[in-house]
Amino acid sequence: MKYYPASHTVLDVYEVNRAIEEIFAEHGRGKVQMPPKLYITLPTGDFRTMPAYVPGLHIAGVKIVNVHPQNREKHLPTVMALTVILDEDTGMPLAIINATTLTDMRTGGAGGVAAKYLAPTQSSTLGVVGSGRQALAQIAAITAECDVQEIRIWSKTPAHAEKLAALWKTHDAVGATLEKCCNCEIIVTTTPSRSPIIKDEWIHEGTHINAIGADAPGKEELDPQILLRSRVFVDDKDQAIHSGEINVPIRKGLFQAEDIAGTLGEVVLGRKKRESNDEITVFDSTGLAIQDLAMAHLVMERGEWQELSFPVHK
Amino acid sequence: MKYYPASHTVLDVYEVNRAIEEIFAEHGRGKVQMPPKLYITLPTGDFRTMPAYVPGLHIAGVKIVNVHPQNREKHLPTVMALTVILDEDTGMPLAIINATTLTDMRTGGAGGVAAKYLAPTQSSTLGVVGSGRQALAQIAAITAECDVQEIRIWSKTPAHAEKLAALWKTHDAVGATLEKCCNCEIIVTTTPSRSPIIKDEWIHEGTHINAIGADAPGKEELDPQILLRSRVFVDDKDQAIHSGEINVPIRKGLFQAEDIAGTLGEVVLGRKKRESNDEITVFDSTGLAIQDLAMAHLVMERGEWQELSFPVHK
Repeated sequence: MKYYPASHTVLDVYEVNRAIEEIFAEHGRGKVQMPPKLYITLPTGDFRTMPAYVPGLHIAGVKIVNVHPQNREKHLPTVMALTVILDEDTGMPLAIINATTLTDMRTGGAGGVAAKYLAPTQSSTLGVVGSGRQALAQIAAITAECDVQEIRIWSKTPAHAEKLAALWKTHDAVGATLEKCCNCEIIVTTTPSRSPIIKDEWIHEGTHINAIGADAPGKEELDPQILLRSRVFVDDKDQAIHSGEINVPIRKGLFQAEDIAGTLGEVVLGRKKRESNDEITVFDSTGLAIQDLAMAHLVMERGEWQELSFPVHK
Repeated sequence: MKYYPASHTVLDVYEVNRAIEEIFAEHGRGKVQMPPKLYITLPTGDFRTMPAYVPGLHIAGVKIVNVHPQNREKHLPTVMALTVILDEDTGMPLAIINATTLTDMRTGGAGGVAAKYLAPTQSSTLGVVGSGRQALAQIAAITAECDVQEIRIWSKTPAHAEKLAALWKTHDAVGATLEKCCNCEIIVTTTPSRSPIIKDEWIHEGTHINAIGADAPGKEELDPQILLRSRVFVDDKDQAIHSGEINVPIRKGLFQAEDIAGTLGEVVLGRKKRESNDEITVFDSTGLAIQDLAMAHLVMERGEWQELSFPVHK
């Protein structure tokens, strides 16, 4: 059994995007097993258990990931993760992977793939709402897919936006107001908000939005009116209804499951697409276990590992 | 993060039984979080993902366990397992445990606890159906709780029964026919059977049966008539209905969920019990994630471990 403590260092954002694209294609073809995530509530957070199997890649396993918003005070990331990979033929554990940074990258990857297919033009201004780890991952993934001319970053704490912008001077990144961030061809929202912070009137026609922050029941970032004048794509219908950007509007009866335009897998396969330059598209990302398997697959090809004994006979 | 490769070696069967008893008491009090196991189907087997949280023991985690019946040909166990434990306060992974032998022991432990409370008398003859790893675990756990005078073991391959019996000469263990195994005060069934192999007429009044083998939809070992004249206790109602000994009879309408007499947790708490020497009691065991957490708790107190780095900052 192999343990991969820090294998994200060997991965390139462009190849991550391709691996994520490939796994969404498998999802679009209906060739994956992925039951809904299981949530366990802890005193100050939760953890999610995400098993899946992708026969086409011969990879099966489980990601275990927590969300503890108060961890920052303890100098720990809010989100930490571990992936366990099993041999599809014997069920034996093959690999344990520190998936903490990989989780950021695979969520970024879905955003990159969504922008590649759904952004109105390949030359864009990118608005980023939030300045945490996922904001960084989205910028990295999207700039690898699209010709981004300018990046506008908003944070509740403006100094955080400036700090992130300083890393992307190559793309003319600047701190900006929320409204200015929303006046872009591509917008990414990455906050843990539980009430809409993006106003309907800020969003112009021909925008693509990656709605990333909402990943649990009760979370939402966009005014539901935006959804009503958009075509809303999701990573997975069941998960999006349960915990994605659409979960609150659906519970309130403002949005219906039938209003979902399609899945990212269908988009990657060319079965669904942006239909005009004017329409607003939304990609509602919740994060899928198969994305974690795609990352594990990459890591197991060439990440650094240490061997762990796994004695099974008495 | 600690890795425990072989910590079952430090555990004693009696203390395992006590830890299992304690965790079933927590279950009986309704003080655990344990969503239903998730099953993933692999080409020649399956794996199950089992998250849980027991606040009273401050332990949270996930067991991942496979079932691959053809593994014996590959000189591997049918069942292998890994448990991941998270810090309840931060969600950080604390421990990874090779839970392969621990899985045998915790299932044995539930059988030992069930026999302690439900066997008609503490001085008994024990009939064991099957001669694999779980047969051995049940014998070890039950002989730690009850005064077993004689052990009768049946196997499809009689030489296997003789081999297991040779380990238990202290308890007058012998290979026996299926019918003679069933003429005992305590019976344990541990086969992967998908049709009843225990006949109704073989079971006399005042017997206690640990029905262990059925742990997935479609599996059953007992003639359903036995259930109808027994009081049937389960480890967990939802899991037993889904995949325990009662799953096939319930699907066929021969047994109803309302016919369940109670849970092992209620028995441990004294809320439910054997009510006469004459009645037949059945304990339907499916194996619970909280049992795995109880084992992890023991292991983390004094198992041998190696430190693994788990870098989380970029």
